[in-house]
Amino acid sequence: MAESPITDTTEAELDEVMQRAALAAPHLAAMRPGERAVLLRRAAGALDAAAEDLVPLAQAESHLPEARCRGELARTTFQLRLFADVLDEGAYLEAAIDTADPDWGMGPRPDLRRVLVPLGPVVVFGASNFPFAFSTAGGDTASALAAGCPVVVKGHPGHPRLTRRTAEVLTAALAEAGAPAGTFAVVYGVETGARAVRHPHTKAVGFTGSIPGGRALFDLAASRPDPIPFFGELGSLNPVFATSAAVAERGDEILAGYADSFTLGSGQFCTKPGVLLVPEGTKLDALVDTIAGRGPAALLNERVQSGFESGLASLVEHPSVEVLVHGRATAGEWTPTLLRTDAAALLDHGDTLLAECFGPTSIVVDYTDEQQLLDIAASLHGQLTATVHGREDDTVVPALLAILAQKAGRLLWNGWPTGVSVTHAMTHGGPYPASTSASTSVGSTAIGRFLRPVSYQSVPQALLPEALRDANPLDLPRRRNGRPE
Amino acid sequence: MAESPITDTTEAELDEVMQRAALAAPHLAAMRPGERAVLLRRAAGALDAAAEDLVPLAQAESHLPEARCRGELARTTFQLRLFADVLDEGAYLEAAIDTADPDWGMGPRPDLRRVLVPLGPVVVFGASNFPFAFSTAGGDTASALAAGCPVVVKGHPGHPRLTRRTAEVLTAALAEAGAPAGTFAVVYGVETGARAVRHPHTKAVGFTGSIPGGRALFDLAASRPDPIPFFGELGSLNPVFATSAAVAERGDEILAGYADSFTLGSGQFCTKPGVLLVPEGTKLDALVDTIAGRGPAALLNERVQSGFESGLASLVEHPSVEVLVHGRATAGEWTPTLLRTDAAALLDHGDTLLAECFGPTSIVVDYTDEQQLLDIAASLHGQLTATVHGREDDTVVPALLAILAQKAGRLLWNGWPTGVSVTHAMTHGGPYPASTSASTSVGSTAIGRFLRPVSYQSVPQALLPEALRDANPLDLPRRRNGRPE
Repeated sequence: MAESPITDTTEAELDEVMQRAALAAPHLAAMRPGERAVLLRRAAGALDAAAEDLVPLAQAESHLPEARCRGELARTTFQLRLFADVLDEGAYLEAAIDTADPDWGMGPRPDLRRVLVPLGPVVVFGASNFPFAFSTAGGDTASALAAGCPVVVKGHPGHPRLTRRTAEVLTAALAEAGAPAGTFAVVYGVETGARAVRHPHTKAVGFTGSIPGGRALFDLAASRPDPIPFFGELGSLNPVFATSAAVAERGDEILAGYADSFTLGSGQFCTKPGVLLVPEGTKLDALVDTIAGRGPAALLNERVQSGFESGLASLVEHPSVEVLVHGRATAGEWTPTLLRTDAAALLDHGDTLLAECFGPTSIVVDYTDEQQLLDIAASLHGQLTATVHGREDDTVVPALLAILAQKAGRLLWNGWPTGVSVTHAMTHGGPYPASTSASTSVGSTAIGRFLRPVSYQSVPQALLPEALRDANPLDLPRRRNGRPE
Repeated sequence: MAESPITDTTEAELDEVMQRAALAAPHLAAMRPGERAVLLRRAAGALDAAAEDLVPLAQAESHLPEARCRGELARTTFQLRLFADVLDEGAYLEAAIDTADPDWGMGPRPDLRRVLVPLGPVVVFGASNFPFAFSTAGGDTASALAAGCPVVVKGHPGHPRLTRRTAEVLTAALAEAGAPAGTFAVVYGVETGARAVRHPHTKAVGFTGSIPGGRALFDLAASRPDPIPFFGELGSLNPVFATSAAVAERGDEILAGYADSFTLGSGQFCTKPGVLLVPEGTKLDALVDTIAGRGPAALLNERVQSGFESGLASLVEHPSVEVLVHGRATAGEWTPTLLRTDAAALLDHGDTLLAECFGPTSIVVDYTDEQQLLDIAASLHGQLTATVHGREDDTVVPALLAILAQKAGRLLWNGWPTGVSVTHAMTHGGPYPASTSASTSVGSTAIGRFLRPVSYQSVPQALLPEALRDANPLDLPRRRNGRPE
């Protein structure tokens, strides 16, 4: 079967897509949360059922192994079903009722009731490294649809055929389940993406990708006549701090875990540990052997390859950097690189040495005393994660965790940052440049990005949204007069 | 007693203030919520006790009557105490615990625990029209301090002596109650304000004021090397839609309420109803008499006066506008102006006729059929409020409320938008330009603007923040595995 080529969406086509999204918005918003839950579960079922179609496309276009692609599709449909559960439970609406109170401390209070409502059409930019879970039907799409926002995905050029097929499956499933026409669409092209961010019907943007690309789109969103929120997840170094006591106790285990974590998926994770801090004198021979013995693996696409090559070159050539293992490139496949420097150099040259290099490389940093861990932590930009390997009785640890809580969205203890569970208490986001907002793009609270509050003052029962009626027909958990109902 | 003159803060002085705020930040963040509640209550007590000092300054500088100033001070200290109650209750921390789960649907889940943490130093720009409640010790300051963020207020030039005295009382009370040095400060000068928004230690901005002023500062915040959130409340027209049935039933009452609401405080409220839509043929004679009979009142300051004069001139001179009552200016005092146009003109010239004119004027709009109410609602920019006067059985009402929920943060039924209760379910904010964010600047949830989530993965009990320990020593309402604990 000959497939039609995938071409850039024209300006007129984009305008039609955005019009349809804007028309769908009030209808999608008016559906009960439980009705949207049905849409999400039907979408999840259809994507699962299309696995034999989708997985080979993902493998072919992203060079990821089959098991990883299957696992990621399962993660994607799990996410859709988790948001369906969130809709069924209903706390996400933050429904609150303050009854009229003539004796309220600042003067008589009218009846006031608040509920969260969807923002309107959301434009989603997916990432190349998760062709399912952070792309067409990924977390931003799932959380925006759950919130009640139509979604227009700007298809990622790294996996265009997978994008198209995923969109076909999703669009058909949503239509069959009764979603309004225009609830979901995909568009293509770099300029189309920029136009979509500037389009008057767009009310928010979800983005996962690089710092330069994300910042350029953030600037477009902020400079609109009506600025819109830009929920970008841009990049992170994910530093790992190992205390002297931890290395003395289980140094081999820490270095082995580090080798596995930074080379996982050829280092193509936004949670890759890009730097490991160890005490001066830590023996790295076994680590060097492990890394030197790793075979080559393909990178996602040519853009990732060229970005990795130039980032790696600037690290390797830096006068403060010692190359412990220099990765080799053959036929587009790379073996991992291991670098080394010391804490003083890191503090002096943080702008270069602490820049994210997306791909299979990481840098080990010697420190001479644990005070340097605090200084380095304090010098960091915002991070998705920060990890401490330590002992509970390490004197440096409480201060280190306190500083890292100011710098990162997720703090790990004696673990590794790769692997982001999709759950309620997850935060995948952090101060800039990790994120462009104070929110998470993974886990059930990601839905909150696409909602805003509306209060109803003295509105009669029959004219109130169901969420706010006294009879509570949606059976929501609510707050009344400042306490759970 | 000779007072020292109030001069612009120098760049070096600002830098020192921001350094002190940054140093205070981790200490303020580390206080238990209940400890910060004590700070807020002590601040409230000190401000109440200083009423005889503060109220005369407010009267002298803002030309507001004594009763209004006393009421507004009471509102201000009520706000501080309400946030103290919010801290004592603890739900604002959104503490969540997901226990380790080997059978979690997308793969084994580690122990994950999330809590909200303060962003860091917040710069606050107060408004001229609420010298207490939206200024130095106002809602932005109260909610940021409650969140655990040091506050640097850019003093409003409309009430500099009140600003200084309020800051002295607040600073002394906070210090006596044990707040870290640097928790609160005030700075002066237009350029100082811009520098404060750009200062590397600033992590968020709260702003109440005009659209041009707010947008300029929003642009500075967004264009920083590390963009920061800018919570601006900029302006609103607050349209009021009266159905034919409502006017037939109680037209006199509606017009009398309108007259009182738009002239309250000389129309110097961001919730002033700037437009009233009534059916063609509505008798306005009594309204005209009422407005023409109102005496003059001073505007807040010269800047407000000149802004009002130029805004009013462009409305009065518009060919589609009929002047029903032309206000008179004598010695800086104004009587109110009442204008009139029709729905077709409003739809054609919305950019001019629907621009906010801050001061004692409003425009009555005739409509010929209720479909025009829907068209006008759909044409609106974002609003703080939208009001419907109607009957429950009016056929136009459900569609009108649905459109207005997309345009405004607060919907009122058969009431008036002036008067904003400080309570849990309040939303004072709306789509741009009403706000630059999807949040409220009034009410207990305003605290959420200054917080971001941090998750702890597999961190031992002793190293977790108290909010996340199994024993729940802070006695917080929390969620565990997606449900209330």
